Amino acid sequence: MATQANSVPHPTLIQGIHNRWHPDIPPFATVKPGEVFKIECVGKSKPVYWTGAQIGNNDTSDDVKNVDLTKVHNLSGPIAVEGAEPGDCLVVDILDVTPFEKMPWGYTGIFELTNGGGLFAREFNSKAAKAIWDFHGIYATSRHIPGVRFAGVSHPGLIGTAPSAELLATWNKREGALIAEHPNAVPAVAFAPNAVGAYVGQDGLDPKVRQKIAEEGARTIPGREHGGNCDIKNLSRGSRCYFPVFVKGANLSVGDLHFSQGDLSFCGAIEMAGIITFSTSIIKGGIEKFALKQPIFLPSPVDPLYSSKVIFEGISVDYHGDGKQYNMDATVAYKQAALNAIAYLMKIGYTREQAYLLLSAAPIESHVGALVDSPNACVTLAVPTGIFSHDILPKPEGFTKQDFGQCAIRSDGIV
Amino acid sequence: MATQANSVPHPTLIQGIHNRWHPDIPPFATVKPGEVFKIECVGKSKPVYWTGAQIGNNDTSDDVKNVDLTKVHNLSGPIAVEGAEPGDCLVVDILDVTPFEKMPWGYTGIFELTNGGGLFAREFNSKAAKAIWDFHGIYATSRHIPGVRFAGVSHPGLIGTAPSAELLATWNKREGALIAEHPNAVPAVAFAPNAVGAYVGQDGLDPKVRQKIAEEGARTIPGREHGGNCDIKNLSRGSRCYFPVFVKGANLSVGDLHFSQGDLSFCGAIEMAGIITFSTSIIKGGIEKFALKQPIFLPSPVDPLYSSKVIFEGISVDYHGDGKQYNMDATVAYKQAALNAIAYLMKIGYTREQAYLLLSAAPIESHVGALVDSPNACVTLAVPTGIFSHDILPKPEGFTKQDFGQCAIRSDGIV
Amino acid sequence: MATQANSVPHPTLIQGIHNRWHPDIPPFATVKPGEVFKIECVGKSKPVYWTGAQIGNNDTSDDVKNVDLTKVHNLSGPIAVEGAEPGDCLVVDILDVTPFEKMPWGYTGIFELTNGGGLFAREFNSKAAKAIWDFHGIYATSRHIPGVRFAGVSHPGLIGTAPSAELLATWNKREGALIAEHPNAVPAVAFAPNAVGAYVGQDGLDPKVRQKIAEEGARTIPGREHGGNCDIKNLSRGSRCYFPVFVKGANLSVGDLHFSQGDLSFCGAIEMAGIITFSTSIIKGGIEKFALKQPIFLPSPVDPLYSSKVIFEGISVDYHGDGKQYNMDATVAYKQAALNAIAYLMKIGYTREQAYLLLSAAPIESHVGALVDSPNACVTLAVPTGIFSHDILPKPEGFTKQDFGQCAIRSDGIV
Amino acid sequence: MATQANSVPHPTLIQGIHNRWHPDIPPFATVKPGEVFKIECVGKSKPVYWTGAQIGNNDTSDDVKNVDLTKVHNLSGPIAVEGAEPGDCLVVDILDVTPFEKMPWGYTGIFELTNGGGLFAREFNSKAAKAIWDFHGIYATSRHIPGVRFAGVSHPGLIGTAPSAELLATWNKREGALIAEHPNAVPAVAFAPNAVGAYVGQDGLDPKVRQKIAEEGARTIPGREHGGNCDIKNLSRGSRCYFPVFVKGANLSVGDLHFSQGDLSFCGAIEMAGIITFSTSIIKGGIEKFALKQPIFLPSPVDPLYSSKVIFEGISVDYHGDGKQYNMDATVAYKQAALNAIAYLMKIGYTREQAYLLLSAAPIESHVGALVDSPNACVTLAVPTGIFSHDILPKPEGFTKQDFGQCAIRSDGIV
Repeated sequence: MATQANSVPHPTLIQGIHNRWHPDIPPFATVKPGEVFKIECVGKSKPVYWTGAQIGNNDTSDDVKNVDLTKVHNLSGPIAVEGAEPGDCLVVDILDVTPFEKMPWGYTGIFELTNGGGLFAREFNSKAAKAIWDFHGIYATSRHIPGVRFAGVSHPGLIGTAPSAELLATWNKREGALIAEHPNAVPAVAFAPNAVGAYVGQDGLDPKVRQKIAEEGARTIPGREHGGNCDIKNLSRGSRCYFPVFVKGANLSVGDLHFSQGDLSFCGAIEMAGIITFSTSIIKGGIEKFALKQPIFLPSPVDPLYSSKVIFEGISVDYHGDGKQYNMDATVAYKQAALNAIAYLMKIGYTREQAYLLLSAAPIESHVGALVDSPNACVTLAVPTGIFSHDILPKPEGFTKQDFGQCAIRSDGIV
Repeated sequence: MATQANSVPHPTLIQGIHNRWHPDIPPFATVKPGEVFKIECVGKSKPVYWTGAQIGNNDTSDDVKNVDLTKVHNLSGPIAVEGAEPGDCLVVDILDVTPFEKMPWGYTGIFELTNGGGLFAREFNSKAAKAIWDFHGIYATSRHIPGVRFAGVSHPGLIGTAPSAELLATWNKREGALIAEHPNAVPAVAFAPNAVGAYVGQDGLDPKVRQKIAEEGARTIPGREHGGNCDIKNLSRGSRCYFPVFVKGANLSVGDLHFSQGDLSFCGAIEMAGIITFSTSIIKGGIEKFALKQPIFLPSPVDPLYSSKVIFEGISVDYHGDGKQYNMDATVAYKQAALNAIAYLMKIGYTREQAYLLLSAAPIESHVGALVDSPNACVTLAVPTGIFSHDILPKPEGFTKQDFGQCAIRSDGIV
Repeated sequence: MATQANSVPHPTLIQGIHNRWHPDIPPFATVKPGEVFKIECVGKSKPVYWTGAQIGNNDTSDDVKNVDLTKVHNLSGPIAVEGAEPGDCLVVDILDVTPFEKMPWGYTGIFELTNGGGLFAREFNSKAAKAIWDFHGIYATSRHIPGVRFAGVSHPGLIGTAPSAELLATWNKREGALIAEHPNAVPAVAFAPNAVGAYVGQDGLDPKVRQKIAEEGARTIPGREHGGNCDIKNLSRGSRCYFPVFVKGANLSVGDLHFSQGDLSFCGAIEMAGIITFSTSIIKGGIEKFALKQPIFLPSPVDPLYSSKVIFEGISVDYHGDGKQYNMDATVAYKQAALNAIAYLMKIGYTREQAYLLLSAAPIESHVGALVDSPNACVTLAVPTGIFSHDILPKPEGFTKQDFGQCAIRSDGIV
Repeated sequence: MATQANSVPHPTLIQGIHNRWHPDIPPFATVKPGEVFKIECVGKSKPVYWTGAQIGNNDTSDDVKNVDLTKVHNLSGPIAVEGAEPGDCLVVDILDVTPFEKMPWGYTGIFELTNGGGLFAREFNSKAAKAIWDFHGIYATSRHIPGVRFAGVSHPGLIGTAPSAELLATWNKREGALIAEHPNAVPAVAFAPNAVGAYVGQDGLDPKVRQKIAEEGARTIPGREHGGNCDIKNLSRGSRCYFPVFVKGANLSVGDLHFSQGDLSFCGAIEMAGIITFSTSIIKGGIEKFALKQPIFLPSPVDPLYSSKVIFEGISVDYHGDGKQYNMDATVAYKQAALNAIAYLMKIGYTREQAYLLLSAAPIESHVGALVDSPNACVTLAVPTGIFSHDILPKPEGFTKQDFGQCAIRSDGIV
C-alpha cells in the first residue's frame, strides 16, 4: 500500500538516442510493467535550443532551405519492459505528450523540392517556407498564419518495438527488391540501410555490434509491422496501443513528437521537442490472441471535438494539373481534395503557402469514400470551422478577401 | 404567411429513372428554390418488391451469385431547379433518407469473383454470400451476423448534377485514354459509354435524343466533378451539399440509397429502397466564389457517435499475401488494415464472410495516417465497440471463441 | 428463419387513448418480446388535423390563449408485453419517433399566466404567444423565429408502465399530503385524482371499473417511479430504457411526443403528433438485479452534436427581480441563467417572447454546477451556436441588433 | 516580430494568497492583455507537500476527520489586467490546468457530518472517508476504488473578478438577510464576513485596509455575479470565459483546482495542487454589450468524450428515505438519482462510500429533465461506462458481485 512517499514524481528517463531499427541495440533503460515513466524527445530536425539546432523561432525559412535531413529520426530509447518476450503483446498507455516547459513553440515547414520535398513539391516547385507556432496551453497560434487557433492533438509521429533479426531481414529484403525495381527514382522509392549517419548513443557498445547495427539497421522513415513512423494523429495522449513483441524486453523507442497534425500531413506536422509519459503492461501470447500483424490501438477520449466542418472531395483525376485520368489512385484523389481546400482558403485570403502549412498542421480529417468505383477513388478532407476566428462557411455573397500577410519565406523572397 | 393549409405534406415526386449521365436527359420534374420535395429511389439492384426483383429477403446467396449488374445504377431524376444556371452553385439539403415503410430491410452482398467482384474478390476467390439486415427504427440487425446492432448512417451513394456537353466530352476522352492504356484488363479499369442497357424512363423523348444519350452518356459507376457515385457515408440526413451547376436547371439526380456504410465499402453497403427528402437553393456564380471543382459539403450534426473504438493499422506491404513491398500504395495498406480487422473478428468467432460483410456495412471509419513516409503508406480502420452486444476490447485473457453461425451462402454450400 | 414474407411492414397499433394512470386500465393490445410495433400519438393538446383540434398552424396565439388543458395528457396504450410480471424489468427500445407524414409541423406555446402558466408566467405576466415550427426532414425552422434551424431530438415527453394498486395508493397519499399542506396554492402544488375529464378509450369496459379508474387514477402531469411525464429529451430515438414492472404485462403507455426540446422546457417543447416505434424485452427479476426504484436508460448514439456553445450561468439570487437571496434554490438559479440567455439573445435582436420560445424548443443543455456552496446553487445553460444562421459568439465590437420580427401573438396585440 | 528569444517560457507568477473577496485587496501582479501567464494554486485544504499539510497520500481518513476548514479557500491573486475598467468584460482563456509535476496525486473526501458535511451527510450520518487518486498523465486511478480509470476534466473550482464596494455591500446585505431568517440553522445557510481566519498575503498592506478587508470581505464559499466558487467542471483547459469587471484592473483571482469533478460534486472533487495558465483580453463596455449579469463562457473542444452511459433518474420524492413528497425540489430529485446510481454500483460490488466518492470525482453529467410538471422535478445523472474496466451495462443475467475492497476509512474502523 502506498504512503506519503507517493508524492515522488515520476522519474524522467534522460534520452538515449538512436536512429536505426535493429535488434542488437541494447535497451537504454528497463522499466517494470505498471511503472509510469517519462521520455525526453528532441524533435525531428533538432529545433533550436539543442546543440546543432537547425530550425529557429524566426521569420525566414532559410534554415528550412538548408536543413540537413540525413540523420533523421532521433529516437529516444530503447526501453526494455521486464518480462516481455517474443510473441507477447506490449500494451503502451500514452499518458501525456507535452512540449518542453521552456520551449513553448514548434514549426511546420515546406521543404525545397530538392531538399525534403513534400506532397506538392513538384506541383508547386516548392521553395522553403515555414510557420512558427506558439503554444498557449493546449492551443497553437502562428504569427505566420493569422486568424487561426486550434487545440493540438499531440502525439508521437514515431513509436515502435524493436524488430527481431528475422523481421529486420524481411524488411531489408522486400525494400531492397523495390529499390532494385526503381533504381534511379527521384525521389527514392525507399531507403536501404546506410552506415553513414547511423547513430547509437550508448558509449559502452561493442564496436562490432555498433558496426553491425549501422550496416544492417532499418531506416526510420516508413512505418512497419512494429509501428514506427506511422504519423497517426490519433496516437494521442490518452490512447492505448498494443504492439507486437519481437525481441526480449520489447525494446520500445519513440520520437518525432508532434504538437498537432491532420490525418494526412502534406509537408510536416507541428514539430516539437517535448516529453512523453508512458506506462506499459504485457499480454502473454498477445500476438496469437489478437492476430496481431501490426499494432492496434484504442483512441483517447480527449481529442479535440470540432463538429462543424467544411468537407472537400477529390477523385483520381488530376484536374488541377493536366486532367489525366488515373486508375483508382488514392494519392491523386487526396491531392485534388487538398488543392480544392487550398483554393477555397485562398478565396478567403490566405496565400497558397499559408493554406498548405495550415492543412498540414491543423486537426484536419481525411476519409476514403470509395476505392471500388472504377476508375475513380473518392476521398474527403474535412476542415473544422471552429479553428478560425472568422466565418469560413460558404455564404451566398461569397467571401470578402482578407489580407493575412504571408508565412515565413526565404530571405531572397522567392516562393 | 402560412395558414392551416400548411398541414399538407411535402409531395413525393414519383421516380423518373435513368442510368446514364448526359446533358440532354430532360428534367423529370422542376422545383423551386426553398421547396421541400421527396424522391423515391428503388435500389441499386432492384431488390424484392419491385418488378424484376433480383435480391430477396431469404437465406441463400444464389440471387447474388446470379445477379445481372449490367443495368446499374437506377437514378431518380433529373430534377431541375428554377433559376439555376451554369456557373452557379446548387445547395442541396439532404433532409432525410428513409427506407420504404413497407420494406424495412436491406442487404449487403459479397459478389462472385466473376460477377461483381469486390475489394478482396481475388484474395478470397469470392463466392456469393450475403447478409440480410432488418431495420428497427434507426437500427440494423442481421440474423446472418448475430451479436451486432448499429444505428444507420443513411445516405445516397450516388448524387450529382448533370454534366455539360463539354464536361461529358472531357470525361469520355480521359477515361477512353485510360481504357486504351489497359485494353484487356480484368476487371476493366473503366467503363466506356455503352448503348446496351442504357435507359431513360421518359416516354415522350425524341428517339434521336434517346439514341444520342445512349451512345454518349457517361456510365454511373465512378464519382466525378459533379458528384456522382462517391459513396461518401457522411452525405447523410442533415448534411448540406454544394454542387457545381453545368447545365440550365442543374438537373440533379440521385440513387443507390444506403441504410448504412462504413467509410470504405469493401463489398457493398446496406443497400435499400427508400425515400430521400431534399430542399435546394442557388448561389449565383458559386463555382467562382468557392473555387468549386467538385462538390463540397457540411456534415450532419446527427451522425452516430461511437467514441470507443478498436483501431487497426495497415501499410503498403502485402503481408497477408506474398509479402511484397509496394510503393506508397494506399489500397494495399487498406487491405492489410481490413485483413487485420477480419482476423481479429475471427478470433472472436465470426466467419471470414461475416466479418467482411460487417466491415462493409457498419459505421467503420478509415483514415490515412501518412502518404509521405516512403515506401509505406499507413492507414487506419476503426471498428466501434458499441455496435457489438459483447465486449470486443482486447483483454489479457484473450477471447473465448463464440459460435455465430454463418451468413447466407450459396445453396451448393461453397464459400 | 425469415423468408420473403419479411418485407411486411411493422404493424401500427391504432391508438387506444387514456389519460389517467391506474392498474385496472386493461391493455389495449398485447405484444411479444422482440416484436417491433408502432404507436400513434395524437399530441398533448390535440393539434390541428384531429377532431377537437385546438392549436392551429396559423399566425395568432388566440388558440393558445383559449386552450382547454383539463384533459391532458392523451396517452396511447396500455400495451401489455407477454410474460412481464411484477418485479421484472421491461426493456423498451425507442427505435424511432417521427411526426405524421401528413403533418410536418408542430408548435411551442407560451401560455397565459391564468391558463397554463410556465416557468416565467409570473415574471413576464405571460400573455399567449406561440411559434409554429415546420419540419424539414430532421430539421425544424419557424417563420416566427427567423435565423434559426436545428436538428430535432425527437422523444416522448411521457412514457411509463402502469402502477400497481399499492404504488398508486402511495402516490395518492403522498401527493394528497402535499396538497393538504398548501391548500390554496396558485398554481396548485399537485393534482389529486379527479373524475372530471378522466377518459379510458375502450368501449367494453365495466362501468364500475371505469368509475374506479376515474376516481382513483393518478393524473399524468408529474413523472413518478414508473417513468411518466419526465420530459427527458435524451429518451430519443435509439435510446434503450429499463422500466420497473408493477403489474402483469407491464402495461406501457406513451404520449406527448416532442419534435425537439431542451434539457429544461420553460414553456413547452415542440409539440407534435406522430408515431413512435418500439421493441421490448423482459429481464426477469430486474427490479432486484438493478436496484430499480425508477427507470434507467442508455442514451442514443444519434443525438445532435453541436460542439460550439455559449454557456450562461445562474445562481440562487433573484438578481433579475428583487435581488433576494435564496437558499440553494436551483429553480431560482435556472431562472437567472435563462434570463441571462434571453437578455443576450435580445441584444442580437430577438424579442423576449422569441427568445423564451427558442430556449424551450431548441437542444439547449442545462447542467448543475454546484448544489453545495451555500447559499448559492450554481447552474449553467448552454446555447449551441450552430443552430443560428448568424454568428452569436461574443465579439469585441458587440452585436448589431437585427430585426427578427415577432412570434405569433394574440390578435389583440397584447404581449 | 518574434525572434529566437521566443523560446523563453511563460513566467510563473508565484502565488499571492488571499481568502476573502474585497475591492481593496491590491493586485499581487499586473499583466498585459494578450500575455500568457501561469499561477500556482496550492489546493483547498493545503494537501501534503505544503507547510501545514492537512490531507496526506495515505490510507486512513483520520486527516479528513480532523481537518480545519475555517481558512478556505486559498485564492491565488489578485491579478490586475492593464486597461480593464468597470463596465468592461474581461476575457480569460484557461489555457491549461495541470497538477504539480512533483505531486501527481489528489484526493476526494467524505467529510464528517459534524465537520464539513456534504450532500448526504445526514442521510449517511457521514464518517470521514477518502480516496487517493494517482495521476497518470491525463488519467486518474485510485487504489481505493479499483476497476476505474478516467480522463480528468481539470478546471478551477473557483475563479472570479473582484467585486466593487457597491456589489460587495449588496452581497453582504442579501446574505445577511438570509442568515437573519435562519439564525440557528445547522449547517448554516450562509457565511457572514468574519475577521477570524481572514488572510491577505501581502506584507506592505496598510493595517487599516487589512482590517477593513477582514471585517467586510465576502467569504469565498458561494459563487456570485463575479464568478467565484461555481464548481463548473466545464471551465476546463481550452475554455474561454467572459467576466464582468467591477474594479479598475479587474483583479482576477483563482483557486481550488480540481483534477476532475462531475457536474455535481456531492462530497468534493479530486482536489489537487497545481498550475493554471491564462491569457486575457478586454472588451470595452462588455457588460452592456452582452447584458452580462454573471460570467458567460465557451466550452473547450477537448473535454473527455464518453458516448456510452447509464443514466439514472430522480424525482422530488424522498423514496430512499421517508417517502415524503416535495414540491418541485431539484435537490431532493438529485439525491434520489444519486442514490439510485449508488445502489446500482453497490450491486456491482462497490461499497456505498466508494460509489459516493466515485460519483463525486468522475466525469458524471447531471441534467434537469423538467422543472414544470408539478409536483415532481425530474433530473438525470449519467455515469459513463467507459471509465470502468469491467462492463456495467445492465445485462439480463444481472451482476456477479465483485469485491473491490473499501476506500480509506478512519483508523477506528467506523464508517
